[in-house]
Amino acid sequence: MVGGGQLARMTQQAAIALGVPLRVLSDSAHASAAKVIADVRIGDHRSLDDLRAFAKGADVVTWDHEHVPGEHIQALEADGVACRPGSGALLHAQDKRVMRERLTALGAPCPEFVVLDPEAPLATLESFAERTGWPVVLKATRGGYDGKGVWGCASLEEARAVVERAAAEGVGLLAEQHVPFRRELAALVARSPYGQGAAYPIVETVQTDGICTEVIAPAPGLDSDRAEEAQRLALGLADALGVTGLLAVELFETEDGVLVNELAMRPHNSGHWTIEGSRTSQFEQHLRAVLDLPLGDTTPTAPYTVMANVLGGDEPEIYKRYIHVMAHDPAVKVHFYGKEVRPGRKIGHVTALGDDLEETRERARHAADYLRKGPTV
Amino acid sequence: MVGGGQLARMTQQAAIALGVPLRVLSDSAHASAAKVIADVRIGDHRSLDDLRAFAKGADVVTWDHEHVPGEHIQALEADGVACRPGSGALLHAQDKRVMRERLTALGAPCPEFVVLDPEAPLATLESFAERTGWPVVLKATRGGYDGKGVWGCASLEEARAVVERAAAEGVGLLAEQHVPFRRELAALVARSPYGQGAAYPIVETVQTDGICTEVIAPAPGLDSDRAEEAQRLALGLADALGVTGLLAVELFETEDGVLVNELAMRPHNSGHWTIEGSRTSQFEQHLRAVLDLPLGDTTPTAPYTVMANVLGGDEPEIYKRYIHVMAHDPAVKVHFYGKEVRPGRKIGHVTALGDDLEETRERARHAADYLRKGPTV
Repeated sequence: MVGGGQLARMTQQAAIALGVPLRVLSDSAHASAAKVIADVRIGDHRSLDDLRAFAKGADVVTWDHEHVPGEHIQALEADGVACRPGSGALLHAQDKRVMRERLTALGAPCPEFVVLDPEAPLATLESFAERTGWPVVLKATRGGYDGKGVWGCASLEEARAVVERAAAEGVGLLAEQHVPFRRELAALVARSPYGQGAAYPIVETVQTDGICTEVIAPAPGLDSDRAEEAQRLALGLADALGVTGLLAVELFETEDGVLVNELAMRPHNSGHWTIEGSRTSQFEQHLRAVLDLPLGDTTPTAPYTVMANVLGGDEPEIYKRYIHVMAHDPAVKVHFYGKEVRPGRKIGHVTALGDDLEETRERARHAADYLRKGPTV
Repeated sequence: MVGGGQLARMTQQAAIALGVPLRVLSDSAHASAAKVIADVRIGDHRSLDDLRAFAKGADVVTWDHEHVPGEHIQALEADGVACRPGSGALLHAQDKRVMRERLTALGAPCPEFVVLDPEAPLATLESFAERTGWPVVLKATRGGYDGKGVWGCASLEEARAVVERAAAEGVGLLAEQHVPFRRELAALVARSPYGQGAAYPIVETVQTDGICTEVIAPAPGLDSDRAEEAQRLALGLADALGVTGLLAVELFETEDGVLVNELAMRPHNSGHWTIEGSRTSQFEQHLRAVLDLPLGDTTPTAPYTVMANVLGGDEPEIYKRYIHVMAHDPAVKVHFYGKEVRPGRKIGHVTALGDDLEETRERARHAADYLRKGPTV
């Protein structure tokens, strides 16, 4: 697995059970996954030489993130390396323009969008906004600047600053209508090279200040027809795009149905609940899929599972907060990523399972809040 | 954790979630746990120098097996190392004579036994057998010979060979009555230095040719009073012996109640079912206990959980058998220990969960049998 983040770290737990030797390519020996894996290669995922040395002897190469250049993946494929997902599929999680155009061609429901003409970006934007109204969401087709790739703009004036900066940085932009959604959902599916597919229940994802803070499985009160529609959509996209491994489809739920927001082809934050909440965790499922093994059962293990992300607070030492959290609720499951605490950084998550939705949410929230903030008066 | 076996390997899965850096002392870089842990020290658990170097900087030292010499543990304790369980408790899992004498003094129900007088072993044995009748079970108080430490003897003649060989090897013996048990049970509890205790449901363990092949949780049809009696017995022993970490008590169920067979102070084969079958796995619980964290919830996650050990067969390559097992039953959970296959060796286990006992047993057995034997005509 290329990348040493928490997704590789949690994949190691599944690899241990399956008896699958997991190697990671990490940019640091102190990365989240590098701390818990025996076979760590230190290198740069943007270096083809490093990728080639890393891939040597591996049965399958997969990804903990989308940042490996597509041409390097193609070069590995030309070398005969089994890259899963492959460059052709992964491109749709790397380039938002390619994704939007392909999904539109496939008839998948998307927000309205336009690719800004680099020769006349503001003119394209202005005529788009005349049709959709403001606000408009600007997205970098790849990457971004200042660590950001998405900007909500209330007016042409706000958009101008983004457009000018993007042009200066050589960042391509597309504009999307601001979708008046009820809530955000996510569909997680797996597909193997053999073509087998498996879908998890549709979940609700709750964002706070642009960060996913909570995932509720299954999405409460979701109409069963709409849930099935979202599962079919994700399975269909996995098939059409030739995904091998996991595909996470972030969705907006509107009055009329669902719209695709983003794609990811790896274990996803919206699937962390599956570690305890499903018979097969997303990490095991990803390994089974990329290794072309039969996929695992996705049946939930409890009526409700709630996952809450733990964000870093002001206190760097959070281990001592375990005592309160574990004593308060012996059934909550704590996951720490071995990352240095920085305010607002995702450093772990907690999972609660139960029969009662509100109680289960409250348990997960309490644990995550306490781990972030400690005792509050 | 001292020892690089599968117990340390599975402890790593729990350590990853808790964010607890796990170091192992392993005699080989190819041992089960050494393959999946970043911080592996190669050394000999019988060498005090190796143990001291290993323990340096560790917050707590714990054990994957009982083979560390007690005097070395005492030396570590004298150095100020937090050994959990400590030498005083662990002695009862290392020396069967000490265990039997202490349990008898505590009033814990045990089979009748006698320590064979090294001056006149056969005379002691003969007078013991006059009281209990044959067969008699001879046990090495520590270690044994030819890789064995327990011998069932149908007659004085059979016993003579064992007694003579043991005397030649300098192995102390005790004799125990052969208990006409209904079945074997196991009680698994945890105790923290703070004194908190937690008990798992009592399980039935099924032995085939002296090897544990199947564990059923909870023990089917066990009277609830007797189950509670067994849990209380194990919690009481953990307290009386000052155990920190897990205590597994192997029990015989007779017509009249339960008798203690063996003790282990570490994660135990009879507790592997807890990985999926309990809200807190025994591996997480052991870490929480030795780190003096509040203990986790032991509530079962399904009405029945059946664990079947996977023994090595004639075919060294078992990975390709995954395809059948996973396709046949997408919900069965496979655990491989990364060990070379040798006939009869425990190389992994499988776990099935369900509402129906017989169906769940059949699913676990089928998977374990297939992984061992492959397709059979």
